[in-house]
Amino acid sequence: MSQRRKLANAVRALSMDAIQKAQSGHPGAPLGMADIAEVLWNDFLRHNPANPQWADRDRFVLSNGHGSILLYALLHLSGYDLTIEDIKNFRQLGSKTPGHPERGITPGVETTTGPLGQGLGNAVGMAVAERVLAAHFNRDDFDIVNHFTYVFLGDGCLMEGISHEVCSLAGTLGLGKLTAFYDDNQISIDGNVGGWFADDTPARFEAYGWHVVRNVDGHDGEAVRRAILEAKAENDRPSLICCKTVIGFGAPNVCGTEHCHGSPLGDAEIAATRKNLDWPHAPFEIPEQIKTGWDARERGMELEKAWSAKFREYSAAYPELAAEFTRRMAGELPDGFMQTTQEFVRTTAAAGEKLATRKASQKAIEYFTPVLPELLGGSADLAASNLTKWSGAKPLAKTVWNGDYVYYGVREFGMAAIMNGIAAHGGFIPFGGTFLVFSDYSRNALRMAAMMELRTIHVLTHDSIGVGEDGPTHQPIEHTASLRLIPNLRVWRPCDAVETSSAWAEALQRHDGPTALILSRQNLTHQERDEQAMANIRRGGYVLKDCEGLPEAIIMASGSEVDVAVEAAKLLSAKGLKVRVVSMPCIELFDAQDQEYQQSVLPRDVGVRLAVEAGVPESWRHLVGQDGDVLGMRRFGESAPGNQLFAHFNFTPEAAAQRLEQLLER
Amino acid sequence: MSQRRKLANAVRALSMDAIQKAQSGHPGAPLGMADIAEVLWNDFLRHNPANPQWADRDRFVLSNGHGSILLYALLHLSGYDLTIEDIKNFRQLGSKTPGHPERGITPGVETTTGPLGQGLGNAVGMAVAERVLAAHFNRDDFDIVNHFTYVFLGDGCLMEGISHEVCSLAGTLGLGKLTAFYDDNQISIDGNVGGWFADDTPARFEAYGWHVVRNVDGHDGEAVRRAILEAKAENDRPSLICCKTVIGFGAPNVCGTEHCHGSPLGDAEIAATRKNLDWPHAPFEIPEQIKTGWDARERGMELEKAWSAKFREYSAAYPELAAEFTRRMAGELPDGFMQTTQEFVRTTAAAGEKLATRKASQKAIEYFTPVLPELLGGSADLAASNLTKWSGAKPLAKTVWNGDYVYYGVREFGMAAIMNGIAAHGGFIPFGGTFLVFSDYSRNALRMAAMMELRTIHVLTHDSIGVGEDGPTHQPIEHTASLRLIPNLRVWRPCDAVETSSAWAEALQRHDGPTALILSRQNLTHQERDEQAMANIRRGGYVLKDCEGLPEAIIMASGSEVDVAVEAAKLLSAKGLKVRVVSMPCIELFDAQDQEYQQSVLPRDVGVRLAVEAGVPESWRHLVGQDGDVLGMRRFGESAPGNQLFAHFNFTPEAAAQRLEQLLER
Repeated sequence: MSQRRKLANAVRALSMDAIQKAQSGHPGAPLGMADIAEVLWNDFLRHNPANPQWADRDRFVLSNGHGSILLYALLHLSGYDLTIEDIKNFRQLGSKTPGHPERGITPGVETTTGPLGQGLGNAVGMAVAERVLAAHFNRDDFDIVNHFTYVFLGDGCLMEGISHEVCSLAGTLGLGKLTAFYDDNQISIDGNVGGWFADDTPARFEAYGWHVVRNVDGHDGEAVRRAILEAKAENDRPSLICCKTVIGFGAPNVCGTEHCHGSPLGDAEIAATRKNLDWPHAPFEIPEQIKTGWDARERGMELEKAWSAKFREYSAAYPELAAEFTRRMAGELPDGFMQTTQEFVRTTAAAGEKLATRKASQKAIEYFTPVLPELLGGSADLAASNLTKWSGAKPLAKTVWNGDYVYYGVREFGMAAIMNGIAAHGGFIPFGGTFLVFSDYSRNALRMAAMMELRTIHVLTHDSIGVGEDGPTHQPIEHTASLRLIPNLRVWRPCDAVETSSAWAEALQRHDGPTALILSRQNLTHQERDEQAMANIRRGGYVLKDCEGLPEAIIMASGSEVDVAVEAAKLLSAKGLKVRVVSMPCIELFDAQDQEYQQSVLPRDVGVRLAVEAGVPESWRHLVGQDGDVLGMRRFGESAPGNQLFAHFNFTPEAAAQRLEQLLER
Repeated sequence: MSQRRKLANAVRALSMDAIQKAQSGHPGAPLGMADIAEVLWNDFLRHNPANPQWADRDRFVLSNGHGSILLYALLHLSGYDLTIEDIKNFRQLGSKTPGHPERGITPGVETTTGPLGQGLGNAVGMAVAERVLAAHFNRDDFDIVNHFTYVFLGDGCLMEGISHEVCSLAGTLGLGKLTAFYDDNQISIDGNVGGWFADDTPARFEAYGWHVVRNVDGHDGEAVRRAILEAKAENDRPSLICCKTVIGFGAPNVCGTEHCHGSPLGDAEIAATRKNLDWPHAPFEIPEQIKTGWDARERGMELEKAWSAKFREYSAAYPELAAEFTRRMAGELPDGFMQTTQEFVRTTAAAGEKLATRKASQKAIEYFTPVLPELLGGSADLAASNLTKWSGAKPLAKTVWNGDYVYYGVREFGMAAIMNGIAAHGGFIPFGGTFLVFSDYSRNALRMAAMMELRTIHVLTHDSIGVGEDGPTHQPIEHTASLRLIPNLRVWRPCDAVETSSAWAEALQRHDGPTALILSRQNLTHQERDEQAMANIRRGGYVLKDCEGLPEAIIMASGSEVDVAVEAAKLLSAKGLKVRVVSMPCIELFDAQDQEYQQSVLPRDVGVRLAVEAGVPESWRHLVGQDGDVLGMRRFGESAPGNQLFAHFNFTPEAAAQRLEQLLER
């Protein structure tokens, strides 16, 4: 048996034993891809197990994330801080080896994968980030950014629509340093894929403009090695290496079938596999010679050392660039950025313009892009609608990388997954636009950003029936409320340019998760605020207009309905009623404030409360309480001019005032 | 000028004039595709404008739905009940000509389109429905089901991931009677697509196994005609006709650019276009000769008459089949079905088994499929996990149509859009399974089903942290609550086999919209119920276990947490507290009950209420009120055995009892 095969068998043994111990897991892909992984990790992957954060490491993504134990075995064997005890704790509560790879839990895991196709999108994002960062920072002989991105994927990833979106874009952009390994084992959970997936995948990828290496025997180390060399030699096209493999390779009775995909092999089959692979060692025991064969620590240290020496020279030659590179890779904002944002918010307030909040967002982008070169913008083919493009934007194009704007095309989900990859790579704050209603398409990638605590910013415009004539297919009703339900996603729905600029500032300053900016198509009235109100925007909810003394009633709203609330309060105060207006641009943030502050905005004694939002009411119920009500809508919209629709669906000052009076009389 | 061009120009004139009058709309595609539409509608489309419900009509889908005015012009000109006044009312409140085509609003509109790519998915579904229905009903010389499905689509549809999912499956299945027209104008909203969409689309579709007609001049009627003939001659592969077109054809100054995509041409350009097209007629005026050229009423009547004659003969030869065909196309359930379902629910109750609700769902499927041959099941590659397959299921395969089960592959969004097309076609009740967490992928298609009031059934299993080891990427937290926000989608989360069978029965009997069944991976305890409780399940929420007299507190829950509630109530009643347990499998349905019933379940006087659900709390807040609380979770899950996670996240009888005691003490 070749040394390669012996090394690969260590991965197989660890995989099947860990899965058996956990009584849970997916042996098929790890056993099937072990030979490919062995060649890639031992012969090519440039990484330093002692420092998983080394800026110029190659990125490795396991898009078929259910095969997580493959990655854990690789990390353990090559010398990351992942012990054999960690491997034994596979899929247990609080372990470093959860069921699917999770960024932030396991050293060396670049991105959380499992929802199929998205890892591939993340990899495309990392490859974009690498090329753009190289264009921003490399100088003359200093290629301080110069690494590959490798991604493993299976039939499942390739069936998912997102694979089309991101691979079509990767081909268009010519991401030459991206290499994907297709685990072509012809099996998915329901069985042989022939019955539901008969694509000629190599031809499909050639149609995307990829460089395809066909018919590689995924169990022949030398063949895999030649294929990788071929892929690395191709600079202007991403490469797909099509590896014919046997799922569950080595397990004599179940390999090649769906029966080894997603459950433990069982003791008998494991014993038979040990024999078949000539792997006589006890569970979780790896012979010294095999350990040595895998150990990447020394090589890793040297690789990083060489890079560090280069970076020192670079720092001497380009001290400002080097500092900037360090800052950007650390995800830190420039010194004084906080002050910059405050100035911007104040300037916006002073201007007092009546603007669509999408337009106000564009002004924020215009303001921040010169200050933050890490901003990498884009839109899913709606630049002129989302207003995500700014005057100095430099779009990327085929192998043209010195830019800061991505034309993502009509690919909402792909855009969001690519943004996650860009953020996970480091060096950038990606933002991307689409219509709010199409956040449905990208939703799971927003969830993944929230789970990974990635700083991505989603510019979601055309936020309500205010969309108008495009009608119910394009009018969000449940979307704002539904995005608010995603844990750790922060959702802002600003009411004017001032709140929009604050929301942008908060999104940029947030280090632990994504933000959705929910913006209007139509113009929104500027609201005057005192200093206190200005300072409290960032608390998510605040008193925008107050009455004398304790209010009799509170009317609260977000976005375009804040002005409805303000005008309703005027109608009521003309009748002698004492009404407070609360603007609530970010409910989650308000909910996170201390009780004292919350009480100061919504005093317990004031039970008569009305919330107004042109959407489903669920987000507001805890804020209005038992004696309050929500003026919302629980049906789809209509096609008509937007202003007519607000009247048609009763989002008017008169209707709000009337409802509040009814509540007061109750 | 050819007669064809003159006819097409009528569409162009109506389109630009209606958009100009509305001051809103998308002229690019209608002007660009008018010549193609003219050939298809005048030379090929078999339909009867007087009866848009004729069972064997060809189906036409405008997947690039923003070009709605093209479809309205075609319907108007060919003689549907859509007047010139309707055309003039384009995009106005309450009109029959909304911004995007809407099923149920406009006669002749087969499906609501606009969210890109989904119309294509609907068309694939219609083509599946046609072939399977033909297999079920055609006999010997009686091809009572034998029609084509045509779909128009643009670059936007082709960039969307869903186009990959559904076209890959269409190719695999060999849907020979599906013909797609690609409006290859090289323009999307951001400009020339070359910068973000460089696919070789014909090669891509050949890789899917499609028959591709390349390089058709979309403005040469004869070329289009030849291409359609070629497509119709191909029986075993779907056809893609690649039409090179000029967006905004005829508008001399803006055609060929993104500037004519999505806004009115303006008076000057319209005047120039009139001149350029030699169309001297006033807005909304169509010369008699042109009207005659388009009028399809006589031909349509004859087509349907011939079919009706054939159907009469068929009815004589196969009276039962004919009656069954009529029943199925009307979407009616068999006589006595209500009784059947009641028996099934009672049998399930009598069995009293402890089952995973996904398993209970499979038992329902086993029970209902022999009774309802219109059930067309499937799963997105999770048959053995979703338990959507039953013992007698006959999977479809390449050009093998006499079946009732679809292996959708790993294509959640595609599956849902295809299901919509199947339901819209008629003759079937489609159901499809995936993991609940991946309803994120298919979400917008569920929304479209809700908007179109289509009877589709989504089997969404693995519904909470009960998923266990697969971890947070696979554990739904916000999903149940978030699906409940979609207007007109009914969401059931049953607590045991009895509620599961009721939920299935309700979903099948529902005529005006889709249902999501939220099912557990793990076994759930059978709950004993009295007759009253049994009868009230279908009200969405009901008293499952009651105390003597007026309760001091109410504990309510759904799904796996109902047993937690029951056990908590036992703990409390052992302490002498009077606690009622309410099971709430379908909150929307409970919310729709009359106040009297709601009060009987949740009396106003009982303010101490606790809801328990292993997810975000928002759905329950209006039910627990100010003095109540929700035991939920607002964070992502963990990878560990499922039972450990329920304890870890405090979904235990002890924790629930303790919380309720705290509320009582408050």
